[in-house]
Amino acid sequence: MNESLGVAVVGHSFMGKAHSNAWRNVGAFHPGLPRVRQQVLVGRDEGRTKEAAERYGWAEAATDWRTVVERDDVQVVDVCTPGHLHHEIALAALRAGKHVLVEKPLTNTVAESEELVAAAAAAPGQVAMVGFNYRRVPALALARHWVAEGRIGRVRHVRAAYLQDWLVDAEAPMTWRLRADEAGTGVLGDLGSHVVDQLRHLLGADGEAAWASGHLTTFVPTRPGPEGPESVTVDDAAWFTLGLAGGAVASVECSRMATGRKNALRLELYGESGSITFDLERLNELTVETGGGDARVLVTETDHPYLDAWWPPGHTLGWDSTFTSQAADLLAAIGSGGPVAPSFADGLAVQRVLDAVAGSAAHDGTRVHL
Amino acid sequence: MNESLGVAVVGHSFMGKAHSNAWRNVGAFHPGLPRVRQQVLVGRDEGRTKEAAERYGWAEAATDWRTVVERDDVQVVDVCTPGHLHHEIALAALRAGKHVLVEKPLTNTVAESEELVAAAAAAPGQVAMVGFNYRRVPALALARHWVAEGRIGRVRHVRAAYLQDWLVDAEAPMTWRLRADEAGTGVLGDLGSHVVDQLRHLLGADGEAAWASGHLTTFVPTRPGPEGPESVTVDDAAWFTLGLAGGAVASVECSRMATGRKNALRLELYGESGSITFDLERLNELTVETGGGDARVLVTETDHPYLDAWWPPGHTLGWDSTFTSQAADLLAAIGSGGPVAPSFADGLAVQRVLDAVAGSAAHDGTRVHL
Amino acid sequence: MNESLGVAVVGHSFMGKAHSNAWRNVGAFHPGLPRVRQQVLVGRDEGRTKEAAERYGWAEAATDWRTVVERDDVQVVDVCTPGHLHHEIALAALRAGKHVLVEKPLTNTVAESEELVAAAAAAPGQVAMVGFNYRRVPALALARHWVAEGRIGRVRHVRAAYLQDWLVDAEAPMTWRLRADEAGTGVLGDLGSHVVDQLRHLLGADGEAAWASGHLTTFVPTRPGPEGPESVTVDDAAWFTLGLAGGAVASVECSRMATGRKNALRLELYGESGSITFDLERLNELTVETGGGDARVLVTETDHPYLDAWWPPGHTLGWDSTFTSQAADLLAAIGSGGPVAPSFADGLAVQRVLDAVAGSAAHDGTRVHL
Amino acid sequence: MNESLGVAVVGHSFMGKAHSNAWRNVGAFHPGLPRVRQQVLVGRDEGRTKEAAERYGWAEAATDWRTVVERDDVQVVDVCTPGHLHHEIALAALRAGKHVLVEKPLTNTVAESEELVAAAAAAPGQVAMVGFNYRRVPALALARHWVAEGRIGRVRHVRAAYLQDWLVDAEAPMTWRLRADEAGTGVLGDLGSHVVDQLRHLLGADGEAAWASGHLTTFVPTRPGPEGPESVTVDDAAWFTLGLAGGAVASVECSRMATGRKNALRLELYGESGSITFDLERLNELTVETGGGDARVLVTETDHPYLDAWWPPGHTLGWDSTFTSQAADLLAAIGSGGPVAPSFADGLAVQRVLDAVAGSAAHDGTRVHL
Repeated sequence: MNESLGVAVVGHSFMGKAHSNAWRNVGAFHPGLPRVRQQVLVGRDEGRTKEAAERYGWAEAATDWRTVVERDDVQVVDVCTPGHLHHEIALAALRAGKHVLVEKPLTNTVAESEELVAAAAAAPGQVAMVGFNYRRVPALALARHWVAEGRIGRVRHVRAAYLQDWLVDAEAPMTWRLRADEAGTGVLGDLGSHVVDQLRHLLGADGEAAWASGHLTTFVPTRPGPEGPESVTVDDAAWFTLGLAGGAVASVECSRMATGRKNALRLELYGESGSITFDLERLNELTVETGGGDARVLVTETDHPYLDAWWPPGHTLGWDSTFTSQAADLLAAIGSGGPVAPSFADGLAVQRVLDAVAGSAAHDGTRVHL
Repeated sequence: MNESLGVAVVGHSFMGKAHSNAWRNVGAFHPGLPRVRQQVLVGRDEGRTKEAAERYGWAEAATDWRTVVERDDVQVVDVCTPGHLHHEIALAALRAGKHVLVEKPLTNTVAESEELVAAAAAAPGQVAMVGFNYRRVPALALARHWVAEGRIGRVRHVRAAYLQDWLVDAEAPMTWRLRADEAGTGVLGDLGSHVVDQLRHLLGADGEAAWASGHLTTFVPTRPGPEGPESVTVDDAAWFTLGLAGGAVASVECSRMATGRKNALRLELYGESGSITFDLERLNELTVETGGGDARVLVTETDHPYLDAWWPPGHTLGWDSTFTSQAADLLAAIGSGGPVAPSFADGLAVQRVLDAVAGSAAHDGTRVHL
Repeated sequence: MNESLGVAVVGHSFMGKAHSNAWRNVGAFHPGLPRVRQQVLVGRDEGRTKEAAERYGWAEAATDWRTVVERDDVQVVDVCTPGHLHHEIALAALRAGKHVLVEKPLTNTVAESEELVAAAAAAPGQVAMVGFNYRRVPALALARHWVAEGRIGRVRHVRAAYLQDWLVDAEAPMTWRLRADEAGTGVLGDLGSHVVDQLRHLLGADGEAAWASGHLTTFVPTRPGPEGPESVTVDDAAWFTLGLAGGAVASVECSRMATGRKNALRLELYGESGSITFDLERLNELTVETGGGDARVLVTETDHPYLDAWWPPGHTLGWDSTFTSQAADLLAAIGSGGPVAPSFADGLAVQRVLDAVAGSAAHDGTRVHL
Repeated sequence: MNESLGVAVVGHSFMGKAHSNAWRNVGAFHPGLPRVRQQVLVGRDEGRTKEAAERYGWAEAATDWRTVVERDDVQVVDVCTPGHLHHEIALAALRAGKHVLVEKPLTNTVAESEELVAAAAAAPGQVAMVGFNYRRVPALALARHWVAEGRIGRVRHVRAAYLQDWLVDAEAPMTWRLRADEAGTGVLGDLGSHVVDQLRHLLGADGEAAWASGHLTTFVPTRPGPEGPESVTVDDAAWFTLGLAGGAVASVECSRMATGRKNALRLELYGESGSITFDLERLNELTVETGGGDARVLVTETDHPYLDAWWPPGHTLGWDSTFTSQAADLLAAIGSGGPVAPSFADGLAVQRVLDAVAGSAAHDGTRVHL
């Protein structure tokens, strides 16, 4: 037991399943990293949690996260709950001396994120990571590398969108994601946070937002709830323009109402000497232009980021691979004692941008300076 | 002579060449319309105008548009000059009793457009058309038809861009298009006007802008001019968000700095029950989604708009075809005495939106209501 | 009259319309070439020919090609009839001292093509060209250039197809294209000839066929004719494999039964150091791979083949432009007295390959060596 | 232990890793199936096998497959060795009463496959499956379903290719895959077998080959071996045409020399009323045309084949998922006692087609009837 790290995942639905998959497989692809044990899966409903734990390969199931985060056989706490619980669980885990991974967005408010950043700073030996898993899409890691080495020159335009369509139907039922008290915001936090994180990931310091102008809309204000019609208290579409530190301007559109789009995180970067485009629905591809046409690169070569751990060239990865690579990066930080990215500070930085967007949207789109 | 309409084109460079091509070919593809004569091509430089006239099939060349618009053997005046001359020439032509076609944007200012609309209203027997030629892209005419018949339901999102890259190089020289006194605005009027016209074309009354929030940037403020460095006095990139009358929100990005994009007018419409996308670089294609995946339609069938005049299915059209079809629509309006679209009023409506965008951009992006 | 060349086109339906368009416009785009007059359009039906002549810009209409090819005011005879008439008309025109353009395929038989080649050789001062218009697709001319300069290395694979679907419906009526006595063969000559010509165009001497193995099928053996059910006497799909002189192997599939494909001439070249792909349905694009991913090139730059005559970058060409450029190349050869390509000898070479394919198909696919 | 099935995998390199991944994860995605234990991984080299076993989650490592296939705690033997060992191991495993999964192609010769089919027939209570994993690509399973329900009508054309480029470099070293005594054939068996299996999978009985005409080439006849230059004794490109039982004709091209193609299994089906296309490099997509354009379907909906086990719509799968689903199908057959597909008989049927292709290729491409 002292040879491996015990992991606890809190939450067993969509994200819990995806994170479980990561912990089950990380060792097979990354043999050189600290080894992990799938120790305990935590959920509210005892029966369903137990069933999920057995299915996903966990040694135990539990219902009280407070007890779990204190356990000696748990070294990593992975928070996959709705957003309003992130703050409390992550704080407890940090105080109990655990490494912590929190699903994005870090919290529902800037204030909560600030507290978590402070708590992480007070625990320098513990890794505190926020789960912007798309940093582990090999194509996006490659894009970051290319931007950093100047392949497309200084970036002028980032044209971004994150488009889904699972709420197109006005009769689709309420979920916690549509309640402000649980989810904080709608697409702004859920999808927009990924986009803002990618700006910082892809452009580095040049991708920090200097100002924001935003517009939010709720196309379907009322949906069927468990006890009759219920108000949707979050946005279901968001548009924002960001002035970036490096001089670029980013335009962002997010929606769960974009009929026909399933999971289309689309990024277009236009620099002084080239451009890069990406679509998450084609996760294994990156398009780059540096004078000879839009080159579609199949990002499956062994010298592409993360790919040496997987399969020979031409054998594509799925969406779930990003969580496995994320787990590997967290374990690498634990093993090396080095910094982790994205850190809680990165999570806070994203939160501040989203806050500025929401503030601008509440004031007729007038620019908010950060 | 009384059997055919004499045409005069003012301007013989890029647009003059494209319009000449249209007048030379319209009869071959549209035998049932009023017949035209390529009477006279007008330009400032006598030698170059004469050479162009001969080359493009004009009976005569001339240098004084004031005389030409008064000639009895001219019934149609087609204005292809830089924007700051549109108002004066069109006004003179209308007053001389001619049918008038004016390249887009109609004028450089709202006030000038208002005067032209008034002049056109005072000459009800004359056709007054503004040259938003992309209304004649068969794919876009088909898209309009599909939206009108409800194929994608009420539209919620329009995601639009018009991206070019011919000014990426900071050493690219000055042109009249970069001087505010000649061009009015930069990409906003040149490219943005096409986008705003398409919103109105594709969505009809639902596409009228109710409010605008905008941001303008000049990435390269000084360029080599004929007499040394010269200030660029227009925007070279524009971002704007429009609230539309029908409840949709449109996001628009325009640039001449989008490295790798040559002429990418890209439109995405997301409706309650489907979506439509288009890219001008693939002019013959339209993508539509109504539940069964993104269907790429090759818009070359004889029952598609404008196509019965051209070739059998599968034989693609070029960009220049839009001007030929535009000429045909103008001749049809002359022949029938019916209304023409886009009219000068349509040109004014576009101008008002662009004006609101510029106004918002000058005030930190705060929404301007129309 | 001695300043310009009188042109006669024989045939006024699909190809006659396309060639008329070329003659009407070639001067506007190519001012430096010998000038042409659209002198006379020839057809069997007097009324329809006259109507077409007027519509397409011809000075006269005529019904007797024999007289026309002898006229002193005709210097260029352009043969757009069904294939079984090519031989006779072209021979007469050559003997009358005219320059001749013959639509592809050159003739319906090898023997006829050999006679035309001999006749052309006996008239060295006259240009004799076969109308493989796709050599004038800028993307394909660029591909040829890239192969010649070694950009993709020695070619190993050519994977080609020409797929249409206008005969998918078993009740589609008979046309001359389905009768062996008029069309010679079916898709083999109509579509396969384009592919074989492109092999020779793109690869040069390396693209000559050394052996052929083929299979032909008629999926719908009987169709509604003008007088009741009529046998289809040609192939409606063809598959063949060619060993090429340069060591490559080409696989070719042609069909008028490929549901959903409208005019899909698709070419894939795989060389030792790169690959090139093309699809005629996206005529303005070429994809090239030389180590950095499949680069989609929008072939609209002014330094791309043929493009300097047309529009600024990003403004696409249509299918019809290939005929205009073909006319320009023919006029250039007349003007310079230099050789023309594709010549009648090129037409014969194609015919010999098709003959070998048909011969192999008639003998269980056994290789026929050329 | 009597509650779960012990699995032994023979082979620990590429396929061993992929199959290990499947056994490690199948339970997490398919909780209702018989449970498995990763009992033992078998390889020739003790040290590397032990390391792989630990890494991939196996309880034990072993070097003698003969002993392993007799063990009482092993119920499933999964053969991932080079092809020349398939026959012997599978035979021993069947005789020892085990369920057997054999990587494709089933064996290197028809005779060996016939023996395996006989052995499987003699062991009716044991599942004997051949690992054509691409039957588990959701898009291809969906394509099969659509063909079966008549969505595209009777199929006339199948245009297929399987293109890779890992042998483009003439200096790439020898591997067992290039030696006839180990691999049997080159691309014909390695890649062609997948294509032939897909014909039978997608078209059912209509996809059986009635005749074959083939051509094989070895572009690079000598490569660097461990002891100096060594002859390549297999084909590195193959072309074949198959007449299918249902009346369609299939053209197939396979290569490891197709520069720029990494893992491009491309399938185009043209039927009487529609078409379907697929590219393995875009594993999550299927294109279908039934009159309204080529519709790209993102095959990630929960009602698409296999998808209910995985993630919400829009969350893509990787190549490795096909092995997990394959394992699930094998377990389902064990659990139900029902038939499995593809069976050893399916493996033999593929082998017979490949044999006919090779026979035709050896006789100038003359058709071989099956």
